Amino acid sequence: MIYFDNAATSFPKPNIVYDSILQAMKEYGANPGRSGHKLALKLGREIFETREIIAQLFNIDNPMNVIFTFNCTESLNVGIKGILKKGDHVITTSMEHNSVLRPLMDLKREGIIEVTIVRGDSAGKIDPIDIENNIKENTKLIVMTHVSNLTGTIMPVKEIGEIAKENGIYFLVDAAQSAGVYDIDVKEMNIDILAFPGHKGLLGPQGTGGLYIREGLDVKELKQGGTGSVSHLLEQPKINPDRYESGTPNGPGIVGLGSGVKYILQKGIENIRKHEEELTSHFIEEVSKIEEVKIYGPLNVKEQGAVVAVNIGTEDSSEISYILDENYNICVRPGLHCAPLAHKTIGTFKQGVVRFSFGPYNTHDEIEQGIKAIREISKGN
Amino acid sequence: MIYFDNAATSFPKPNIVYDSILQAMKEYGANPGRSGHKLALKLGREIFETREIIAQLFNIDNPMNVIFTFNCTESLNVGIKGILKKGDHVITTSMEHNSVLRPLMDLKREGIIEVTIVRGDSAGKIDPIDIENNIKENTKLIVMTHVSNLTGTIMPVKEIGEIAKENGIYFLVDAAQSAGVYDIDVKEMNIDILAFPGHKGLLGPQGTGGLYIREGLDVKELKQGGTGSVSHLLEQPKINPDRYESGTPNGPGIVGLGSGVKYILQKGIENIRKHEEELTSHFIEEVSKIEEVKIYGPLNVKEQGAVVAVNIGTEDSSEISYILDENYNICVRPGLHCAPLAHKTIGTFKQGVVRFSFGPYNTHDEIEQGIKAIREISKGN
Repeated sequence: MIYFDNAATSFPKPNIVYDSILQAMKEYGANPGRSGHKLALKLGREIFETREIIAQLFNIDNPMNVIFTFNCTESLNVGIKGILKKGDHVITTSMEHNSVLRPLMDLKREGIIEVTIVRGDSAGKIDPIDIENNIKENTKLIVMTHVSNLTGTIMPVKEIGEIAKENGIYFLVDAAQSAGVYDIDVKEMNIDILAFPGHKGLLGPQGTGGLYIREGLDVKELKQGGTGSVSHLLEQPKINPDRYESGTPNGPGIVGLGSGVKYILQKGIENIRKHEEELTSHFIEEVSKIEEVKIYGPLNVKEQGAVVAVNIGTEDSSEISYILDENYNICVRPGLHCAPLAHKTIGTFKQGVVRFSFGPYNTHDEIEQGIKAIREISKGN
Repeated sequence: MIYFDNAATSFPKPNIVYDSILQAMKEYGANPGRSGHKLALKLGREIFETREIIAQLFNIDNPMNVIFTFNCTESLNVGIKGILKKGDHVITTSMEHNSVLRPLMDLKREGIIEVTIVRGDSAGKIDPIDIENNIKENTKLIVMTHVSNLTGTIMPVKEIGEIAKENGIYFLVDAAQSAGVYDIDVKEMNIDILAFPGHKGLLGPQGTGGLYIREGLDVKELKQGGTGSVSHLLEQPKINPDRYESGTPNGPGIVGLGSGVKYILQKGIENIRKHEEELTSHFIEEVSKIEEVKIYGPLNVKEQGAVVAVNIGTEDSSEISYILDENYNICVRPGLHCAPLAHKTIGTFKQGVVRFSFGPYNTHDEIEQGIKAIREISKGN
């Protein structure tokens, strides 16, 4: 089985991730932060260590501003709904995932906010000037992805972060496809809120996600409940991270996430990126040569992550993916990838695309097999 | 190490839970419902199987009405916030966890709802008549726990479910302490919404929780995002369970939860309950004999789950718990247990209590050691 669906979730994970999760579950699977006994304290310490290592990865000063969530979608919902109030205007892009667009459209439908959607070009690129030109007096937030989950397009977040800062607008970045592969520096990029999954580039397990909220920023929580802190009050505590972490966390999952990030730091994020760039570059180069094949996006690994959107002739993307799975044991993802406006932007709303997304464990030989498969399917078509 | 903190999270889990999680992560850790390839489909099928087995456990007709969440707190937030609208009145009890009280108080503070809190008696018992007497014209919801996390008190949910039905009021039950140990029949008990954790009595891993919503009941979702369904629309789909499951689920965690429930059904829920009743009964009987010890709650296993709240003299509960941990390797939970009004109800708001909570893996010998420890601490006090 060749797994080219790393943009959905990375697979496999480093062995240390499996091992540490199992060890946490078996040896100290208590409820962290709820009780004071040894097992609970041990898990609590391990969770804090994961906060620290993630803070280090994203240049966050205070690990307590690293919040653990269920997934990146939850992080985005907290960031978006927690900051926007009645009458606010928000700017986003046509390259966003439904995890950004659907919460925004929900608030819009409820009559709470106005939304401007800046359109990308045919390669999915966003021009910072288009963002700037759409700023209004009531613009409260710019929310956008760092790397497109459809075309892999790397967005100019640093430039847009500066625009946000200059105009006193909050900047929320969706790092679903970039965390763990591309450098993210919340200070240098002027990121006020960062949403990231645990189970993609950070190589942690499913059921983990994260959220960074800049010190002092008052973002309303989405859920209230037991936090194991100031339990005598019926009011949700306003301290980070407790405010956003009601109920039992995914303790062993967070331990596994910590192991994933440690693996990345040991291996070197630039080495992982280089490996993925090489695979992506070779794949783009070879597949581009195949007649009948259309590739979308920047087609240049300096402007594109390890995500490549492909179509063969006018064939339905699901059909091609089915053949790849059945005849070649290659896992890809067809369809709309929860990003309908991005598909409209690049002109693939009806056909969908076959998405190839590579990860640290993919090999050059697997890429060759992928290319060969596309070549054969293309001929048979 | 003797683990008496099962009301916080059950520990250990059955081996089949560890094994099935590891197998899911290692062999088919793809993103379920997002892609059509073999690995994703395999995980999708396993998740559906867990829905089926949970539906069986709670007598739910349609497994698609079993929704997976992050934890029971999230389930409660969805149920409470999704059903209550401006001007609604809700009835709850003084025995609730902060996962019920804090969302309610948040809505109250925002001026959206009115809340009536029915007070339990000194053993934590709620009288159905008190619920009925507080029904008003705008009462939309009754929300309450099935079993108290402080005193173990088993609540008359069947009687209150009937009252709710007769009066056309929705009934939301918090099964945090009962799911997997006590019989729950959503039809017989007239439960419209059931919130439950995956990692307590159901013996699944942390990072899993569940929610049942009665067929046809329109409960607004808390989060929007990618659902892998109707992806061309910017509107959240209204179909169950997709509406409430935005973003990547905890796939391997849900597989583990399924194994936990299978274990329970194989073992027989009544056998697990019987085992816990025997342990609890013996513990209550022996600890009651110790001078200086005060036990709270019904003190009768037909009216009480495997949760026993204890104090020794006027000693701070944290101090006693510390001694149990340090000198006896016994894990318990002191303090307020995220249930401040419940402590006020039984008169322990200042002292807290030392909570002993037993699970299927506790043994008679461990109970004896617990009793011995309390006896010794009590003498030394």
